[in-house]
Amino acid sequence: MEKSVIYPGTFDPITNGHLDIIQRALQIFDQVVVAVALNLEKDPLFTGPERKEIITEATRHLGNVRVDSFESLLVDYVRAQKTNVVLRGLRAISDFEYEFQMALMNRKLDETIETVFMMPSQDYSYLSSRLVKEIAIRGGSIEAFVPPIVEKRLQEKLRSPRTTSAR
Amino acid sequence: MEKSVIYPGTFDPITNGHLDIIQRALQIFDQVVVAVALNLEKDPLFTGPERKEIITEATRHLGNVRVDSFESLLVDYVRAQKTNVVLRGLRAISDFEYEFQMALMNRKLDETIETVFMMPSQDYSYLSSRLVKEIAIRGGSIEAFVPPIVEKRLQEKLRSPRTTSAR
Amino acid sequence: MEKSVIYPGTFDPITNGHLDIIQRALQIFDQVVVAVALNLEKDPLFTGPERKEIITEATRHLGNVRVDSFESLLVDYVRAQKTNVVLRGLRAISDFEYEFQMALMNRKLDETIETVFMMPSQDYSYLSSRLVKEIAIRGGSIEAFVPPIVEKRLQEKLRSPRTTSAR
Amino acid sequence: MEKSVIYPGTFDPITNGHLDIIQRALQIFDQVVVAVALNLEKDPLFTGPERKEIITEATRHLGNVRVDSFESLLVDYVRAQKTNVVLRGLRAISDFEYEFQMALMNRKLDETIETVFMMPSQDYSYLSSRLVKEIAIRGGSIEAFVPPIVEKRLQEKLRSPRTTSAR
Amino acid sequence: MEKSVIYPGTFDPITNGHLDIIQRALQIFDQVVVAVALNLEKDPLFTGPERKEIITEATRHLGNVRVDSFESLLVDYVRAQKTNVVLRGLRAISDFEYEFQMALMNRKLDETIETVFMMPSQDYSYLSSRLVKEIAIRGGSIEAFVPPIVEKRLQEKLRSPRTTSAR
Amino acid sequence: MEKSVIYPGTFDPITNGHLDIIQRALQIFDQVVVAVALNLEKDPLFTGPERKEIITEATRHLGNVRVDSFESLLVDYVRAQKTNVVLRGLRAISDFEYEFQMALMNRKLDETIETVFMMPSQDYSYLSSRLVKEIAIRGGSIEAFVPPIVEKRLQEKLRSPRTTSAR
Repeated sequence: MEKSVIYPGTFDPITNGHLDIIQRALQIFDQVVVAVALNLEKDPLFTGPERKEIITEATRHLGNVRVDSFESLLVDYVRAQKTNVVLRGLRAISDFEYEFQMALMNRKLDETIETVFMMPSQDYSYLSSRLVKEIAIRGGSIEAFVPPIVEKRLQEKLRSPRTTSAR
Repeated sequence: MEKSVIYPGTFDPITNGHLDIIQRALQIFDQVVVAVALNLEKDPLFTGPERKEIITEATRHLGNVRVDSFESLLVDYVRAQKTNVVLRGLRAISDFEYEFQMALMNRKLDETIETVFMMPSQDYSYLSSRLVKEIAIRGGSIEAFVPPIVEKRLQEKLRSPRTTSAR
Repeated sequence: MEKSVIYPGTFDPITNGHLDIIQRALQIFDQVVVAVALNLEKDPLFTGPERKEIITEATRHLGNVRVDSFESLLVDYVRAQKTNVVLRGLRAISDFEYEFQMALMNRKLDETIETVFMMPSQDYSYLSSRLVKEIAIRGGSIEAFVPPIVEKRLQEKLRSPRTTSAR
Repeated sequence: MEKSVIYPGTFDPITNGHLDIIQRALQIFDQVVVAVALNLEKDPLFTGPERKEIITEATRHLGNVRVDSFESLLVDYVRAQKTNVVLRGLRAISDFEYEFQMALMNRKLDETIETVFMMPSQDYSYLSSRLVKEIAIRGGSIEAFVPPIVEKRLQEKLRSPRTTSAR
Repeated sequence: MEKSVIYPGTFDPITNGHLDIIQRALQIFDQVVVAVALNLEKDPLFTGPERKEIITEATRHLGNVRVDSFESLLVDYVRAQKTNVVLRGLRAISDFEYEFQMALMNRKLDETIETVFMMPSQDYSYLSSRLVKEIAIRGGSIEAFVPPIVEKRLQEKLRSPRTTSAR
Repeated sequence: MEKSVIYPGTFDPITNGHLDIIQRALQIFDQVVVAVALNLEKDPLFTGPERKEIITEATRHLGNVRVDSFESLLVDYVRAQKTNVVLRGLRAISDFEYEFQMALMNRKLDETIETVFMMPSQDYSYLSSRLVKEIAIRGGSIEAFVPPIVEKRLQEKLRSPRTTSAR
């Protein structure tokens, strides 16, 4: 059967860890839909359209990736996509508990939806969007942690007066 | 001996998981005092009086429940209640560490106070007030997670312009 | 693409939690190969052929399940099966760390092999083959935890003099 | 209402951590029944009758403690005792998961049985019967970790030729 | 070889747990540099200079302690100090995961930097700057948790109108 | 001051993860004493003298390493060595709890002894002596996980009839 999988997240911004998970999923599923969750974070660094644009650029070299966004409940979005599989990366125990709560909650809201978990390369086990932003704000190099498009956009953001003063 | 137990929390709002713990505690203790902690959250959805009113309504069918609130340190409040037992629900590991820190701190502040932990039904192991609010805000049904009075009040809150714009 | 997944384990014996994972995997993969790991436990209750026979019986009503066994390294077995996906159930944090170590080790031994994790129904979150055996040995009913064939075989085992004296 | 609580365990041997939990429980319950689980460990250091005798001696100074033993399933034993509350100590996260699994399993076997968890003094958070035995075997002093009767009996055991050669 | 170690943190304010770690480190290293991280918390109670002044006062009785602050990335600061060892206290599992992520990230940013972890006295295992501030705000005594200078300064802060209204 | 550190363990056999910790410790301490704990495991694959010999060979290229063994309590051994610092590697949460219990116990037995924890390279985060032995027994290559001397000795052991029949 043709199987696509929804990979939801905030992606503010996408990191090499996320890209690693997407590539692994493409070994198993026919298509990966990267779905940007809007309005989940109170104060994102990048807008929803910016995040979609960055992900599109960063996944251009991969086939079978579609980039989308959603504002509703995840289960409602998944149902509308005509699939029933959600993908989440697990890096560490702190992820694990939160992810399990979300997966159980989603199963309660719609029992036909399954969540599969994959593990990123251990090179990225410590990586998070939040850490990447902190390093960039403190003047460190994030070259090893994100695709080039993210490095470029993050530096533009941090040079703009409104964002830096927001810290 | 007559034994009452203090069940402190933010209860913003009370969920079926909290109600499950209260009912279990009533099998063991003669009275459960549900004690709403005020001023702990920076930005609660419901005011202290609203939370007390909702809990009173949601526990009306149970005997031996008293609803109260407190602003002081928990240990000072407990001492004033002429009891020495505090009840907390444990759902998951992330609860566990926080709860243990609080219980140790309270024991240091007043060594006569004991904390007992109970486990909610696994049907509620993923449930939290925060998740309930997120689902409601995104337009999902919370009927399975909270008593009817909470569902009704939450919908009223979310329809009022000030609250929704606060997100 | 046609995708089969290897579900390795000791299965001594198979429980309703394992069956739940198999059924969930069949929503995503075209075939599930249940692969009994031989010689991993020092002192299994059921022999390898017995475990295969029980699983075959317990999964008869499901389509697309194949039952097999292996003695080699898991990665060598997976490679020989012409697939590259391994399935593991995650119930709790204690599973999580062990599973992650195994998955990382396997990835080191063969980087083309991916492990996907799925979560059983919370009704089975506490269930393990070991607990089932302990309950049966102490005379409790295991009807709610295992398929009928396991209940029957386990009782036969425990009535045979050699096994009970081994405890 | 009169409330007694069952405190089950292997107690091979009882430590100051167990005694601390018993004393805390006596602040809340009218009676604590210390129930020695027989046949759970393959190779206990002390026999069941020895463990009961040691606990009786070590709790003599406390009122309202009864010492008992059981071979059946815990839930069957609890039901026969005309109570429905089980007490367990929680020291650390590794306890937590195991205890939760057991409590969920017991609730499935008999839904009227409740487990309450209490936390020992942090002075005993690292203490276990196993560690006490290891220290004694290696010639260290266990005076700070167990009541005098255990220290005496443990030294007698370790002097007997059969036990020491068993390591 | 002469070895100094950098002990970075927010120290808002320093607690007896931090002081315990510093004293333990002085048994092993020739000098401890307490390095206040600036601009990490959005809304610290004490300013950077206040925190440095308090730490200087609280460590005056100890030899070989230097107090400093930094705004850059930790790895850049460490390199500039002509040392390569970072010290962090570990109290509990929740610390552990965060600390490991940070240490791995720092090792990626500069592989010559090593992090060593030490464990505070179990008397301080539950202690955090956040809990100390919460107790003080709710009118509890923090005498057992912080050095006298912190107690005095915290009470001055909480009496000043701007701070209390900020809660 | 001259500082040596004791690195105790079973080392049955030493892995690249252990060697990584030793090399990192040599950046901080003047000497590392690798101390093989005898009689801790019931059924070690290598005898104490074999383990010492293998470690000596595997650390020959490093300066300032001494290899020793002990049968007593760790604290008694450390005291006799005229140092007070113990080194332990932390790979994962499951390590963490056990290590903390041991460190607290040791501190209770001798409060002058400090334990410092270091983190191996993430390349070795999943590695354990037990996993290495399992892979070798099942015929997998352990070249990436252990120094050449261990690979050679392990293969000799597994070819000898007594050992293989012991599985």
